[in-house]
Amino acid sequence: MKLATLADGSRDGSLVIVSRDGTSCVSAADIAPTLQAALDQWDRVQPRLRARYDMLNSGAQQDIRPVDPTALHSPLPRAYEWIDGSAYINHIVLVRKARGAEPPATLKTDPLVYQGGSGTFLKPTEDITFPTEAWGIDFESEVAVIVGDVPRGTTAAEAADYVRLVVLVNDVTLRNLIPEELAKGFGFFVSKPSTAFSPFAVTPDELGDAWRGGRVHLPLVTRYNGEVFGDPEAGPDMHFGFCELIEHVCKTRPLTAGTIIGSGTVSNEDRARGSSCLAERRMIEQIDEGAIKTPFMKFGDRVEIEMFGPDGASIFGKISQRVAQAPR
Amino acid sequence: MKLATLADGSRDGSLVIVSRDGTSCVSAADIAPTLQAALDQWDRVQPRLRARYDMLNSGAQQDIRPVDPTALHSPLPRAYEWIDGSAYINHIVLVRKARGAEPPATLKTDPLVYQGGSGTFLKPTEDITFPTEAWGIDFESEVAVIVGDVPRGTTAAEAADYVRLVVLVNDVTLRNLIPEELAKGFGFFVSKPSTAFSPFAVTPDELGDAWRGGRVHLPLVTRYNGEVFGDPEAGPDMHFGFCELIEHVCKTRPLTAGTIIGSGTVSNEDRARGSSCLAERRMIEQIDEGAIKTPFMKFGDRVEIEMFGPDGASIFGKISQRVAQAPR
Repeated sequence: MKLATLADGSRDGSLVIVSRDGTSCVSAADIAPTLQAALDQWDRVQPRLRARYDMLNSGAQQDIRPVDPTALHSPLPRAYEWIDGSAYINHIVLVRKARGAEPPATLKTDPLVYQGGSGTFLKPTEDITFPTEAWGIDFESEVAVIVGDVPRGTTAAEAADYVRLVVLVNDVTLRNLIPEELAKGFGFFVSKPSTAFSPFAVTPDELGDAWRGGRVHLPLVTRYNGEVFGDPEAGPDMHFGFCELIEHVCKTRPLTAGTIIGSGTVSNEDRARGSSCLAERRMIEQIDEGAIKTPFMKFGDRVEIEMFGPDGASIFGKISQRVAQAPR
Repeated sequence: MKLATLADGSRDGSLVIVSRDGTSCVSAADIAPTLQAALDQWDRVQPRLRARYDMLNSGAQQDIRPVDPTALHSPLPRAYEWIDGSAYINHIVLVRKARGAEPPATLKTDPLVYQGGSGTFLKPTEDITFPTEAWGIDFESEVAVIVGDVPRGTTAAEAADYVRLVVLVNDVTLRNLIPEELAKGFGFFVSKPSTAFSPFAVTPDELGDAWRGGRVHLPLVTRYNGEVFGDPEAGPDMHFGFCELIEHVCKTRPLTAGTIIGSGTVSNEDRARGSSCLAERRMIEQIDEGAIKTPFMKFGDRVEIEMFGPDGASIFGKISQRVAQAPR
């Protein structure tokens, strides 16, 4: 099942069901007004949403309309929690090198996560605006899951049952604000501005065999100014899967329905697969060529993030964002 | 105006208006079903809430009921963001000493904040439960503000206009999980479990002269197992006021209505005022007496947090929480 949120001017938008091929949609606001409302009462509404999804795919559904990607908000325009992991070891090692920092000693045994800001997400096609390029604007292409209510102490073995939806993420990052911020010892804050998510949130069954072991076994394609920048496999190099991330983040408190948990920047050891953020490519240039060539994003630059099924169809729709200047 | 949330079994509870003396309340669910809904449309609903508050205080309001503190949830049972500052320099210096860490070089020029988990808050009278005392259970008594929609780039001079409500906080902390977590470089996560807030959220005007300079100029009283543990003044030693904290946290992204911003543990340089967390007292013992005497919280211990007006009345109601064991 594919769900999306129509940006209707309200704070949380309006829930729609999207056809499997991503071309048409139908309102689900009579079943649940918003995606958060659906997640809040998932067991009750999910069968009705699914029945309408089946009708939509069979061609029998009335009142359908074409999907206009620019009319969609992120599936959750705001969420109660956005917790981002950093589960690709290759990315951690490279980016810490770039910052002149050591990877943590517990790199492979204790998941690395940070609590992100979840009050104001960007639309999947919304401009990324800042007053200055000097903050070091970067994208980070990721996969994330949206969970139901997860009791405290849920184990990795139990966690898969709580995964409701899968989405893609552009975890916009302000690289030049990071060193000063992390030096204060409390983690990211101003260096992590508003995040954007893919137009469609899909149930794990929609991914077929590609969803296994709490990982999405498909390449995540990032295009930068029209060229492929990276297409790393999101599955095998994800050291901690989503189930392990869930076990970690609910160790000392439960999670409410609609909590989003991110994979961190997707990254493969195989350099032929490119990168999912500029910081990583810059570090590779530094290591291989002795100098950084790639600048951070400039006003006018565009990043596109997408994942394709074996049939070549775009599963989550496309995050497509341009960087632009704002007065403040 | 004083607002509260009745724990009615729903996720976000039901909005009530509380009389100035904290003894009686009346439903406001017909004006806005929840506090979040009220904050989402504050300009529209605030005059109606205020009119009913005036009726309640004048004795003219129908359908009132006595306030039962145990029937109340935290004003926002879950929030879109919970951002906690650490604005009392004395606390930072002492607690970093306790961790063997240096205070940040920008201690007095760049506010220290962390992004807290905001999906599952505790009720003000709810037990604080953990499977083990070994995590180093501690309380942190704080003041916080709940803001409206704050545009990105709002300055401290503009920030006061966005403060909608003031609350007290028990920012429960698991001290023994902190060192390992901060060593990873991404800030707190499992060391900050669910937080609790005071029964009543009050508009700043309710504080009279005590609300000035973006600070609450009243003592914050913490009782531990029935004895006063600290009553530091929350105003003068708050190095960064709430307006400066707001300017900092909206530097790179806007804030949605209902975002909660905390002061950090209230702490005075004057040691006669005691402490607002165990970690601080433990560090003082270490410095003054060469050894820590006070243990972290044990199952059965109780912390109470309250603030009194010049007339001796409890402004926010009382956070009163016992620590208890849970299976996991």
